[in-house]
Amino acid sequence: MSDLHHLHLEIPKSDKKRIVIIGGGFAGIQLIKSLRKSPYQIVLLDRHNYHTFQPLLYQVATAGLEPDSIAGALRHLFEKHKDFYFRMARVTGIELAEKKISTLVGDLSYDMLVIANGSKTNYFGNQEMYERTFPMKQIPQALNLRSHMLQNFEQTVMSPDIEEQDRLTNFVVVGGGPTGVEVAGALGELKNHVLPKDYPDIDFDIMKLHLVDAGERLLAGMSEKAGTRALKYLEDFGVDVRLGTRLVDYDGNNVTLTDGTVIPAKTVIWAAGVTGNTIDGLPEAVVDKGRILVDQYNQVEGHPDVYAVGDIAAMCSEENPRGFPMVAPVAMQQAQNLGKNLKRQLKQKEPIPFKYRDKGSMATVGRNKAVVDMPRFHFGGLFAWMVWMFVHLMSIVGFRNRLVILSNWVWNYMTYDRGTRLIIRTFLRNKQYKPGDSL
Amino acid sequence: MSDLHHLHLEIPKSDKKRIVIIGGGFAGIQLIKSLRKSPYQIVLLDRHNYHTFQPLLYQVATAGLEPDSIAGALRHLFEKHKDFYFRMARVTGIELAEKKISTLVGDLSYDMLVIANGSKTNYFGNQEMYERTFPMKQIPQALNLRSHMLQNFEQTVMSPDIEEQDRLTNFVVVGGGPTGVEVAGALGELKNHVLPKDYPDIDFDIMKLHLVDAGERLLAGMSEKAGTRALKYLEDFGVDVRLGTRLVDYDGNNVTLTDGTVIPAKTVIWAAGVTGNTIDGLPEAVVDKGRILVDQYNQVEGHPDVYAVGDIAAMCSEENPRGFPMVAPVAMQQAQNLGKNLKRQLKQKEPIPFKYRDKGSMATVGRNKAVVDMPRFHFGGLFAWMVWMFVHLMSIVGFRNRLVILSNWVWNYMTYDRGTRLIIRTFLRNKQYKPGDSL
Repeated sequence: MSDLHHLHLEIPKSDKKRIVIIGGGFAGIQLIKSLRKSPYQIVLLDRHNYHTFQPLLYQVATAGLEPDSIAGALRHLFEKHKDFYFRMARVTGIELAEKKISTLVGDLSYDMLVIANGSKTNYFGNQEMYERTFPMKQIPQALNLRSHMLQNFEQTVMSPDIEEQDRLTNFVVVGGGPTGVEVAGALGELKNHVLPKDYPDIDFDIMKLHLVDAGERLLAGMSEKAGTRALKYLEDFGVDVRLGTRLVDYDGNNVTLTDGTVIPAKTVIWAAGVTGNTIDGLPEAVVDKGRILVDQYNQVEGHPDVYAVGDIAAMCSEENPRGFPMVAPVAMQQAQNLGKNLKRQLKQKEPIPFKYRDKGSMATVGRNKAVVDMPRFHFGGLFAWMVWMFVHLMSIVGFRNRLVILSNWVWNYMTYDRGTRLIIRTFLRNKQYKPGDSL
Repeated sequence: MSDLHHLHLEIPKSDKKRIVIIGGGFAGIQLIKSLRKSPYQIVLLDRHNYHTFQPLLYQVATAGLEPDSIAGALRHLFEKHKDFYFRMARVTGIELAEKKISTLVGDLSYDMLVIANGSKTNYFGNQEMYERTFPMKQIPQALNLRSHMLQNFEQTVMSPDIEEQDRLTNFVVVGGGPTGVEVAGALGELKNHVLPKDYPDIDFDIMKLHLVDAGERLLAGMSEKAGTRALKYLEDFGVDVRLGTRLVDYDGNNVTLTDGTVIPAKTVIWAAGVTGNTIDGLPEAVVDKGRILVDQYNQVEGHPDVYAVGDIAAMCSEENPRGFPMVAPVAMQQAQNLGKNLKRQLKQKEPIPFKYRDKGSMATVGRNKAVVDMPRFHFGGLFAWMVWMFVHLMSIVGFRNRLVILSNWVWNYMTYDRGTRLIIRTFLRNKQYKPGDSL
């Protein structure tokens, strides 16, 4: 927002204690739901006015869904909540001693603070990668990737140079976690079923998909069976998967890998990892590798009224030295537990320590093909894909979104048609913004 | 698109005559449909890769529909056509003597040229209005307006100054044609039914809607009855309609009108008129007030193989000295007639002169309220609204879009909920682009 000088972050005072929540992701919205009708004043701050259902972000990037299908306006979500305030503001600092946070539109005091501002793309300090590759964390980034990809195909049909055509149509995905696997699978579907109809003048044999991962297998956070299955599915799509391989260099035109291979590519998707989205003003002692150290109640050590939940929180223990995985179910369960404890606190009851119930994880690789890990068994194929569909449909925000997504999926399934291949957000590399910027 | 230097506009040669069509609007796509299976090679050029259903653009601007509901990818529309080529390129000039057009990616020769690149917002030479007001001609512009509007409401809740709150929530619509009336009606709906739920902290009495028009009545292109009805509907919504009034000045903060009134407003929507979207290289003699003079066969005088159709074409005659109105039905009927004539030409048959069949016109002012002019009778109200819905639903491109729009309308009708109030395209005034720019 421009012209912020005249604004002022002021929330009406009430006799209730004020909980300020930073971030409207999975943790933030779950916490607000858990605290509904409890005698707290809730203030939610987020720099976007919407919640993003990140597990389906790759569908926005690959023109399968429109942004409104995977996002919910935060105000709308909580319009029935009493003594709830949303402010669209970026938090720039925390002053623990004074119990207040700072934003670009002023300061705000709190009685309790919940830091739930998630994670951001991890470039591991590599500025080149930040400037030249496409991340997949936010909707504007996914739309940048979509526009870039479609513009490249429009250029391909006008390119007289076969090498340039190759470069414009090649994709390199860095990272073999769920995001990398899912986006590679979606690109495989586009290549095999969608794009050849749109671009009859392109010989799609020149379009090559690569996925590189430094590890020994795909989906390291899931079972070995899931990793092996995902590998097979991707290879069926023609994706060249290179494990134990890293990207050494990318100049915007050519990718160089550790094994010496050089791949000409105008599009590199960076799904290599995430790191905590920290905020200035926290004592150094409580921040480790971008995450905030919390105890088993999600409380920040030494600060009884400050909590961190979700991706940003590192709840380390002896059996779990690196904290829980940075995934939505952990965020939601932590938020639920914290909500319960904040209500117990009002009744002077002891807080309950967090306990993670792993209900399983899943990833999809195009239609009919998914992998599902349940605590006791692992499976794949069409049934896994249907489970994946059902679980995602049920967990997405808003009844209307569910209907839109379901009808989209049914339509895509029957027709292989994706209706959203419009270049609306013209992507101008090196001109106005970087791929990772969120305009 | 960046890096265009390496591209080259080349279309495979065929033994058929090549028709180059500039513009994928109503005229362009109708002509291509009419020429399907005729022995011509068709090349369509457009700087966007999609067709826009402009009559519903105001719904995108007011967060009622998502862009994909009112747009169709041009390649997708014609994927079953043979010897058809789409190129996403901006035409920069025409060289009639050499029978070729120039674009940023090279030249292209034609046997026949059809100029169908429509109209653009007419600022009547006023650079300030171009820089400070929001036009409503293209999807990116509608999205700019949507983001700007929602950002202003987010600022309003953080503004300590009542005058500033007033300025942020006021809207001035300039122009009382269909676009102005429809957008004012949609804003009235937002004010009365949608926004108060999202922003319980705002007293919506401060949000004032104004519509100014220099003429004596609204909807000058329709019947007097329609104009009077639209006025009543708008006033029911609380819109302050000022006829016989012009905007004198707008500095980005205050609108000054000819009657001396000063309205504080951060948002002015410019729907005051359109003008032909001309191309360089046409002889001066054939261009009049931004439109290209054509005979009754849509042929450009003195250039047997060059045609202009739709908004850009001025087909003037004694009984019709200013040409036909710049509306979709004229464009589509002209394109249909031209298609017929181009096919007749192959059989050495005489061309048929264009004859406009006015099937009526309509405008809507919020749910339940529309005005319809049929050749023999005029009506309004709920029935008119249903006719409006049906006609628009039937004329929009693509079966899938129709389903999406219908389900949106039914949902909005039942719930007064609009699901798309996401600020995804952050609008930064005076920072990176102007309201009218199409990024």
